[in-house]
Parts: sequence; structure tokens; C-alpha cells
Amino acid sequence: MEEKIEFKLATIEDVDSIVKMLADDLLGSQRERYEQPLPESYLKAFQAITNDPNNELIVACIGAEIIGVQQITFTPYLTYQGGWRATIEGVRTSSSLRGKGVGTKLIQWAICRAKERGCHLVQLTTDKKREDALRFYEQLGFTASHEGMKLKL
Amino acid sequence: MEEKIEFKLATIEDVDSIVKMLADDLLGSQRERYEQPLPESYLKAFQAITNDPNNELIVACIGAEIIGVQQITFTPYLTYQGGWRATIEGVRTSSSLRGKGVGTKLIQWAICRAKERGCHLVQLTTDKKREDALRFYEQLGFTASHEGMKLKL
Repeated sequence: MEEKIEFKLATIEDVDSIVKMLADDLLGSQRERYEQPLPESYLKAFQAITNDPNNELIVACIGAEIIGVQQITFTPYLTYQGGWRATIEGVRTSSSLRGKGVGTKLIQWAICRAKERGCHLVQLTTDKKREDALRFYEQLGFTASHEGMKLKL
Repeated sequence: MEEKIEFKLATIEDVDSIVKMLADDLLGSQRERYEQPLPESYLKAFQAITNDPNNELIVACIGAEIIGVQQITFTPYLTYQGGWRATIEGVRTSSSLRGKGVGTKLIQWAICRAKERGCHLVQLTTDKKREDALRFYEQLGFTASHEGMKLKL
């Protein structure tokens, strides 16, 4: 019998598991620092996210185990007649469960949440080096209509 | 003598000029409604932006005239060791002044502001139909490393 996946707002106790997941990734391993104690910058960022009503850090769980994470940012814009957008970022699933549909369920959850919050658009950017990601998001209904441009400071 | 461009947070009195500029654009003309009185949805979005300390709607002015606009969103993330990002959106310049470097000055201003706010990255997406925009942003130092994916709700 398939175990039930639940979605909830992340708590401070979840940050360790989340960072472990972020670091256990081809690109993430080069830029994260998963060590004990966890660098304080992660905890400060968690507090900033939690204090912002327009940001939600969502974890997917099976029982007590965290198996996926994503952050959703809700932003009001003047464009599109003053429309709100949802931006999904930092999507990761537990490496032991990749290919089991957890990522799909995360994104579908985010799309529902974006509708609840009255957004007219859901958006995300995906690194062109993540070869499978483009097809994954296209299957979920996204269109690669834009260039995602980044400038490191 | 070149007139001085100044940058400031938009006020409610600026919304009319901003929406006029958003509508005076190849893609914007299909999705905005510039009419009198201005649809209330624009004013509600303006209030939501203004009430959010992580969103700044910036106008470029020469004297009392508004000649450009952009919105900057500052977002805390767990990724990159708890780094903040700045996202630029809704960049438009007055059609009478296009090609005069106003866009460049807007983006350069946003990059400085992102540094002030402690961001490690500035990001934006640009519609692949805006043929000149990719080169414009590349000249300002951005890399088209990501696909910008959108899903309309």
C-alpha cells in the first residue's frame, strides 16, 4: 500500500533535513554547507522566510520523514492588471525517492496553493544544466517561454 | 546638457503614468487596461507592493516626468547557504526615450540596490519574443543560464 504524502509549512526542526537534501544534489553539493552545527545563515534565512507572509517553505513528508521541499513566493505586480504571481524555487526531493513522483506532487500542490492565493501565473526557472527538468516541468503544463537570466554579485 | 535621471520609490500619484507605460508596449498592449478611471486592481496591487518591505516599485524620472519603471523583489532562500536574491520584473521605459540608455540605468540602479540589500544574485526572466532583450541583459552582465517557465492559471 502506498504511503501517504503530506504537505506542511516547514518548522525550524525541519531545517537540518532540508539543507541535507539541498546539499545532496549535483549542483547543490557545490554551493551548500551541510555540517553540524548547521551554519547560522540557514537559520537566519529560515526566520526571514517564516516572518514573510508572502513566502512559504513547504515540505513533503511521509510520517516523520521529510522527502521533499520547495519554496513558494507570492508577489503582487502592477503588470497583468495588478496580478499576483507565484514563484516556485528550491525544489528538491529525497535522492532515495527520485523518480517516484514526489516532485510532481510537490509542483501540483504549489499550483493548487497559487490558485488559492489568487495568482494568475505560476513561474519558475530551471538551470539549463538540469537536462531532465525542462521536460518534467513541460509535462506539468509549464511553457519555456522566457529566458531565465542570472547575475552573480 | 543631458538632463538628470532620478530614481525613487513610486507613489500612488505615479500609478497612472506607470500603467500608461506598461500598456504602451508590444506585449503589454494585449494584457493591460489603461483607461480612466484606472481599474481598481492596479491600485490594490500598488498598495500590496508598497505594504511589502521586500518589494520596491522604482520609477526613473526627469523632473516631474516618469520615464521608466521596474519592480524589485527581495527574497530570502535556504539555497546558497541562506542567500537573498533580487528579482527584477516589469521593466519598461517611456517609448519616446527608448534607445537612450534609460533601461540600462534602471537595471544598473537595481543591481546597486540588490548589493545594498545583501543579495548574492540578481535575476529576471525575459520573454523569448522580446528579441533585443536577451542581448541587452547580456551586455549588463546577465547570463541566460536558466529556462524561464510559466504556467497560466
